[in-house]
Amino acid sequence: MSQSKLVMTAEDLTAFLEHEFPQVHKDFLVEEVAPMRLRVRLKVEERHLRPGGTVSGPSMFALADVAVYLATLAMIGPVSLAVTTNISMDFMRKPAANTDLIAETRILKLGRLLSVGDVLLFSEGVAEPVARASMTYAIPPSK
Amino acid sequence: MSQSKLVMTAEDLTAFLEHEFPQVHKDFLVEEVAPMRLRVRLKVEERHLRPGGTVSGPSMFALADVAVYLATLAMIGPVSLAVTTNISMDFMRKPAANTDLIAETRILKLGRLLSVGDVLLFSEGVAEPVARASMTYAIPPSK
Amino acid sequence: MSQSKLVMTAEDLTAFLEHEFPQVHKDFLVEEVAPMRLRVRLKVEERHLRPGGTVSGPSMFALADVAVYLATLAMIGPVSLAVTTNISMDFMRKPAANTDLIAETRILKLGRLLSVGDVLLFSEGVAEPVARASMTYAIPPSK
Amino acid sequence: MSQSKLVMTAEDLTAFLEHEFPQVHKDFLVEEVAPMRLRVRLKVEERHLRPGGTVSGPSMFALADVAVYLATLAMIGPVSLAVTTNISMDFMRKPAANTDLIAETRILKLGRLLSVGDVLLFSEGVAEPVARASMTYAIPPSK
Repeated sequence: MSQSKLVMTAEDLTAFLEHEFPQVHKDFLVEEVAPMRLRVRLKVEERHLRPGGTVSGPSMFALADVAVYLATLAMIGPVSLAVTTNISMDFMRKPAANTDLIAETRILKLGRLLSVGDVLLFSEGVAEPVARASMTYAIPPSK
Repeated sequence: MSQSKLVMTAEDLTAFLEHEFPQVHKDFLVEEVAPMRLRVRLKVEERHLRPGGTVSGPSMFALADVAVYLATLAMIGPVSLAVTTNISMDFMRKPAANTDLIAETRILKLGRLLSVGDVLLFSEGVAEPVARASMTYAIPPSK
Repeated sequence: MSQSKLVMTAEDLTAFLEHEFPQVHKDFLVEEVAPMRLRVRLKVEERHLRPGGTVSGPSMFALADVAVYLATLAMIGPVSLAVTTNISMDFMRKPAANTDLIAETRILKLGRLLSVGDVLLFSEGVAEPVARASMTYAIPPSK
Repeated sequence: MSQSKLVMTAEDLTAFLEHEFPQVHKDFLVEEVAPMRLRVRLKVEERHLRPGGTVSGPSMFALADVAVYLATLAMIGPVSLAVTTNISMDFMRKPAANTDLIAETRILKLGRLLSVGDVLLFSEGVAEPVARASMTYAIPPSK
């Protein structure tokens, strides 16, 4: 498997998300895709917040999850059956109130059966990350 | 700190959740509390689901997070500033469609500054867990 | 795959360890095996210690790793190619000085390709765990 | 706390390791230190290997652990009581046989009580990482 060539563009990923995850696709904006790398934004709305205006843990989880998932799909194509098998996440700083979150992702391994990536989450405009996550996806065997 | 005495009942925890997390408190039902142990239910609604009726990853994350948080508070009292610092989660089976999830939690360490717990998530009525998680909370220093 | 039947006994596991991991097998003693459960002891020697007599992190890692590995093999047979793909570990208390560590393991998922288990580590004779770990193993496809 | 200034050099860290961890200091070579970054080498010997010449899991754990620990100390000074509280690690590729491992570390958070860092491990001369890890250290309160 070549690890230097994208098989899906930002537009392809957006269309995939829209089709496969109609409940959540409006939350996310794919901003940049490159081989083994992807940047995606959580467009923060009231429903993502906790009292005080800070982004909730489950919303950060969702962003990290979608980020590594899309970065994987960008390399292998639209495999809707790929599933998250493991996540590890450190919450390091309180996100800025009412501010979009940006996920910067890199794929560290793209195997035949497993994909592993990590991601840093930033409040837009702030240099230090609010969280880090690493994730593993199981890729269904191709027939 | 005694690790054998509860300082909050299921009713206290429910009232705390209602007051501090008005956006989500209706999702959860505290079913049983004991020293260092807690069981809480995610009352699955349309908004927790992915296509196919399976509970979403962020909803499982939210349940695991609230479970260990409440199990900690049950032992130390209503400290709304306790924050999740780390989570590790394995997604092991697909949850049953349109079925509540039950979290069975145990606190493994209750220190002055950190609380560590783990949790198994089950689709109601199914013996094998759908996910496991372990979590760390930072407890703000008491004045 | 039946999840109620052992295919290797404690003796089988000990012989496997001796044959496959000659460098370390003397460190470990398989104490009890049951379906999806296993208890193994780290026989603590000078080389496992840090100054002060406490067991080192890498030694705790090694014990957790071997525990879930052997618990998996007990269910699937002597697959020497199974490899650890992920570990998450919380170090919660300082181990007692110069005291054996006991690992209590349970297998939470035994799939065709992945095995997931967790483990608590105890200083012998102490009720509260010194560490917890969860692990994933990739099982090579059978021919 | 300034996060742009080193308080320990590679030489200081080496001396610290030699004094505090006499059992293992010879395994490691601090190669480069910069603010919030550090590179350290595991000088692979027979005792770090598994049959086939591949570096063992516990040896990779030890390298990741020492890497984030030293990167933290480089910023805060020689605090021998800092302890690892959590590690999450993905093993992604088999290390090259009989080849040193290089750890590339970055500190993501340097708080008053907790330090969080992540690390990639490489077989020397190979572009793709063999493992990744993230770690949390508890820093003892200064008097």
